[in-house]
Amino acid sequence: MSEINVQLKNGEPVLVPDSATVAEALKKLDRDLAKQALAARVGDREVDLTAQLDTLRPNGEAVQIEPIVPQTRDGLEVLRHSTAHLLAAAVLDLFPGTKLGIGPALLDDPRYGFFYDVITPRALTEADLSIIEKRMKQIASKNLAYRRDEIPKHEALRVFGERDEPLKCELIDEKAGDSVSVYYIDGSPFIDFCLGPHVPNTNKLRAFKLLSLAGAYWKGDASQQQMQRIYGTAFFTQEELDAWLKQREEAEKRDHRRLGRELDLFSIQEEYGQGLIFWHPKGGAIRKEMEDYLRHELLVRGYGLVFTPHIAKRELWFTSGHEHNYADSMFSPMEFEEQEFRIKPMNCPFHIGIYKSAQRSYRDLPLRYAELGAVYRAELSGTLHGLTRVRGFTQDDAHIFCTREMVRAEILGCIDFAFHLFEAFGFKDIKVELSVRGDDRSAYLGSDEDWERAEAALVDALNNKQIPYQRIEGEAVFYGPKIDIRIEDAIGRTWQLTTIQFDFNLPERFQLEYIGEDNKPHRPIMIHRALFGSMERFFGVLIEHYAGAFPMWLAPVQVAVLPITDRINDYAAELARELRAAGFRVEANLRSEKIGAKIRDAQLQKVPFMLVLGDREMEQKTVAVRERARGDIGVMPFAEFKEMARRLVETRALTNNNQTQEVQQ
Amino acid sequence: MSEINVQLKNGEPVLVPDSATVAEALKKLDRDLAKQALAARVGDREVDLTAQLDTLRPNGEAVQIEPIVPQTRDGLEVLRHSTAHLLAAAVLDLFPGTKLGIGPALLDDPRYGFFYDVITPRALTEADLSIIEKRMKQIASKNLAYRRDEIPKHEALRVFGERDEPLKCELIDEKAGDSVSVYYIDGSPFIDFCLGPHVPNTNKLRAFKLLSLAGAYWKGDASQQQMQRIYGTAFFTQEELDAWLKQREEAEKRDHRRLGRELDLFSIQEEYGQGLIFWHPKGGAIRKEMEDYLRHELLVRGYGLVFTPHIAKRELWFTSGHEHNYADSMFSPMEFEEQEFRIKPMNCPFHIGIYKSAQRSYRDLPLRYAELGAVYRAELSGTLHGLTRVRGFTQDDAHIFCTREMVRAEILGCIDFAFHLFEAFGFKDIKVELSVRGDDRSAYLGSDEDWERAEAALVDALNNKQIPYQRIEGEAVFYGPKIDIRIEDAIGRTWQLTTIQFDFNLPERFQLEYIGEDNKPHRPIMIHRALFGSMERFFGVLIEHYAGAFPMWLAPVQVAVLPITDRINDYAAELARELRAAGFRVEANLRSEKIGAKIRDAQLQKVPFMLVLGDREMEQKTVAVRERARGDIGVMPFAEFKEMARRLVETRALTNNNQTQEVQQ
Repeated sequence: MSEINVQLKNGEPVLVPDSATVAEALKKLDRDLAKQALAARVGDREVDLTAQLDTLRPNGEAVQIEPIVPQTRDGLEVLRHSTAHLLAAAVLDLFPGTKLGIGPALLDDPRYGFFYDVITPRALTEADLSIIEKRMKQIASKNLAYRRDEIPKHEALRVFGERDEPLKCELIDEKAGDSVSVYYIDGSPFIDFCLGPHVPNTNKLRAFKLLSLAGAYWKGDASQQQMQRIYGTAFFTQEELDAWLKQREEAEKRDHRRLGRELDLFSIQEEYGQGLIFWHPKGGAIRKEMEDYLRHELLVRGYGLVFTPHIAKRELWFTSGHEHNYADSMFSPMEFEEQEFRIKPMNCPFHIGIYKSAQRSYRDLPLRYAELGAVYRAELSGTLHGLTRVRGFTQDDAHIFCTREMVRAEILGCIDFAFHLFEAFGFKDIKVELSVRGDDRSAYLGSDEDWERAEAALVDALNNKQIPYQRIEGEAVFYGPKIDIRIEDAIGRTWQLTTIQFDFNLPERFQLEYIGEDNKPHRPIMIHRALFGSMERFFGVLIEHYAGAFPMWLAPVQVAVLPITDRINDYAAELARELRAAGFRVEANLRSEKIGAKIRDAQLQKVPFMLVLGDREMEQKTVAVRERARGDIGVMPFAEFKEMARRLVETRALTNNNQTQEVQQ
Repeated sequence: MSEINVQLKNGEPVLVPDSATVAEALKKLDRDLAKQALAARVGDREVDLTAQLDTLRPNGEAVQIEPIVPQTRDGLEVLRHSTAHLLAAAVLDLFPGTKLGIGPALLDDPRYGFFYDVITPRALTEADLSIIEKRMKQIASKNLAYRRDEIPKHEALRVFGERDEPLKCELIDEKAGDSVSVYYIDGSPFIDFCLGPHVPNTNKLRAFKLLSLAGAYWKGDASQQQMQRIYGTAFFTQEELDAWLKQREEAEKRDHRRLGRELDLFSIQEEYGQGLIFWHPKGGAIRKEMEDYLRHELLVRGYGLVFTPHIAKRELWFTSGHEHNYADSMFSPMEFEEQEFRIKPMNCPFHIGIYKSAQRSYRDLPLRYAELGAVYRAELSGTLHGLTRVRGFTQDDAHIFCTREMVRAEILGCIDFAFHLFEAFGFKDIKVELSVRGDDRSAYLGSDEDWERAEAALVDALNNKQIPYQRIEGEAVFYGPKIDIRIEDAIGRTWQLTTIQFDFNLPERFQLEYIGEDNKPHRPIMIHRALFGSMERFFGVLIEHYAGAFPMWLAPVQVAVLPITDRINDYAAELARELRAAGFRVEANLRSEKIGAKIRDAQLQKVPFMLVLGDREMEQKTVAVRERARGDIGVMPFAEFKEMARRLVETRALTNNNQTQEVQQ
């Protein structure tokens, strides 16, 4: 029996028998780590702890082992994937004859942690979820082993065929090589075609929950079998799961689809088409504030506002490359007068059209074209979700054309702009990611020099502003590196909104030029940037962030005027008129209702201020002010209230507190 | 020989022989009128003066004759139509073998008064126009008679066949009854298939001019023969023609297509598609001002701003009726996921969607939904013209849903709004037209009661505001009566922009309801209204109205900062920054150029104010101000200029004069 050297990253090598498993080797290297480990990375492979070292070592060198542990992204993936297997095992136990589809871990979906698609002999109902979850817990407590095997393809097809798993056979047929990796949970009827890795045993799975049922098609294709998708999630500890479930409950309360309906902000109407947003007057009032503020900032920052068509001849999309790379996401062409037109999925080629409408000199640059551009994309109906995943949306889009020398300042300008905007809308926790090329250089357009310069400009800009950022290799788009900005909302969820992208592709395709100081033509640098990303999506995020209780400057109704009796109606109407003339959005409730009901109504509509008016207020031209979060804040002269309200709007205050107190003092 | 009674409207009857011509009868009734007359209306027919009375009188009653005289719309039509015949006669004379198409009068086209489509043996050039015009004058001076004949269809086909006029034969084949009306100009080779009426002789044609040549297709159909269209115009007097030509020359100087290019306001780019508008930053700056002002006014006037999708499922357009009545003007459907979608040609159904998203009570009404809605219409490429005839445009659209009782106030509100807007944009001469049903009641939807009430509300609103208006029978749309508003621009051309329309159709089709005070469902009244009509078209009108010299609040660049030497550049840049921070649109020209060149540049760009800066200005923190129309207006402290400029913008002053003088005093 021969031995081999194993070592942790940056650790000392240790000799173990080469028949040892990864777990045994880890135990020799670090007992604590070994206890925690869920799986491991050996070389460039992710493997089970039960894997034998001699099967993993292609040559005679020392083997580096990196355990995959809890509280890491990789660890979470192993945990959730293994829990999905556990789910399938429980379903097979309870519903013999079930056919299995696929069951992956989900790491980036804020709603779910994993799913398994199944066809059970009878259709499952929500009530079944707790029964299945209970069975999962029973199996987990038995501490059963996850076991991997490699068998020849024909053998695998026989095994899954015998178990009457036609979908698995189809997958093996399509995807497997000669040798097939399968996983068992010993002591359960479950077997899966799967690459792994998985936890060593069910004991590791202690904090999971099934969440919901949904319809799904085999392979996501509506012409294939219909299946049921069981969603669940899993965490490393019960505390984490509880915290997540609480956040989820909070998120459900804030669900922008529910609030959108209750507050009459927007609608989506099936008869008109899925994923198409109707902004109602109250949502429109908020959008107007968003747009006004954005356009003001754009002009201050030297952008030109442009407006471009929503359609263009098909030829354009060939020039831009969208017909080749993006056709699946575009609605089919329209015809007229023997020409074909496409509705635009992006604004870029149109801004390029303006750039090309005249000869440009280095003196004209940078040119910054900004547009609130409505684009349409053929998103699958199954992926649509409220305002956050739609088919038609309005990008706060801009394209900057500049020289290489100008790039750094432009990038800085974009980042500064984004931070400024998010702070104005009440987001404090802002994260930056820098996406650069992966190792396979052939997958990217543009010269090495371009990429290096561009990356240097991005890094330089970030360092200059002392902005911490995460660098992500291989996440750049094929046409250039980019910066993405994520914000964290009031209940700790993060949303990726801003993107600032270099583009080495379109300036080439459209042969863009400017005349340099040397009197010769040069290719400009083009930067795409969207800060909110999509007005619709950002609106969805805003609704959830504020749980519908918008700060004064954004609130669709800012003041509710509530007379206590009909006798006060004239006074109430007069105040409402005065407030409206001063630019406030006001509703006067002059109905013959009890004041309690009127207040409840305004409260449900999350109106920042209610003015409760009785005889005394009318006589003294005062108002009794109620703030939606704090209740009564006292009686004050009407003029004083107006001034306070004006200041809250003008300063775009995020809460109604500070200034109110100032005024009260 | 028997006699018959003839009479003028409200005149005494006079006996004439029934073989008398209309001209002879007129002479007996009123010698002066008879001299002026070009043709006449007898009963409900328009006829030549040479028509014999006995051919016109179906029964034995007195015949009422109404002469068609100069300086009337009908008179102009006869004059221009007759001039078109004269044109054809001249072409046939000069180019034997020419095939004739059609040659109507144009009364509403600001550019032309008539045309004739021809296929000449060799293609015509612009140089031919003066030759043809000369020949027209020669023929006219011969005082040749226009003569009408009625011949059997087969005879007409033979006559036109012999003359090798295949297009005329095609028309006769398609349109003529058994008997065909043909016109000659005696002593010329010309003969036409035409209903008339015409002037009695060429002597009446004294003020005409040929204007231009264009390509045209037979029947406007690109698959048919290509022809040449000769455009001309005609008036009653040389003075009128001269005035019109002068206005035309002025209009050409103001042509928004030329100014749009020179001032870098917008472009239309063939590669992207015809009739699609790109607003460049300078045009975008103006559009932003238009939008901001409009939206502010909308909110003040109690409209809700909505935003709706640009596409909808095809089914919707069946419900709305557009698939039946409007399909030719829509781009063809797009497909995705086995559904068909259409890009919207109108916003109405979307606003209806918002109305229907909740149950409405009479207390909720009126609901006024306003949107800057981009719509797309499949307009024939031959009809497109700059910004004023396009395929994609943005309506300043709104729909008002209200009860019958509210209609009058709503109409008043719309009219008031339109007047207010046009005055703000510098239009003083505003004309109102009221279009009501024609006699054929079956061509209209909605009950008599609806129509009468609606018309009464419109008339009532107009009278109440003491607004003079023209009432036009038979010009209502099939779904309701309407008010159109025209404005006159700086050179006296009128533009129809606003339309306020009742709609009895869509509330039925979409089954709109509100719950009345009686707790029962009722159908609301729906009013369509667009004030500017189209942002693009109104922009075109604005450009021409101001000849590109926009008032301060609209000017894309409001102030040009022009240092005399490089040594003043820092001071210039500082002033530019300060002005920008104060919200002005500023360009600082820091190039090493002569001040004369800088001023010329700014002048060409029609910048309202130029600040000319030298050593003295820098030392004293003053500015030497040049106003684009008046030249130097003196040196003043910078703060004073800023205050003056601020006031001009804030008051949306239409000229830079008054306030300037105030400040100078």
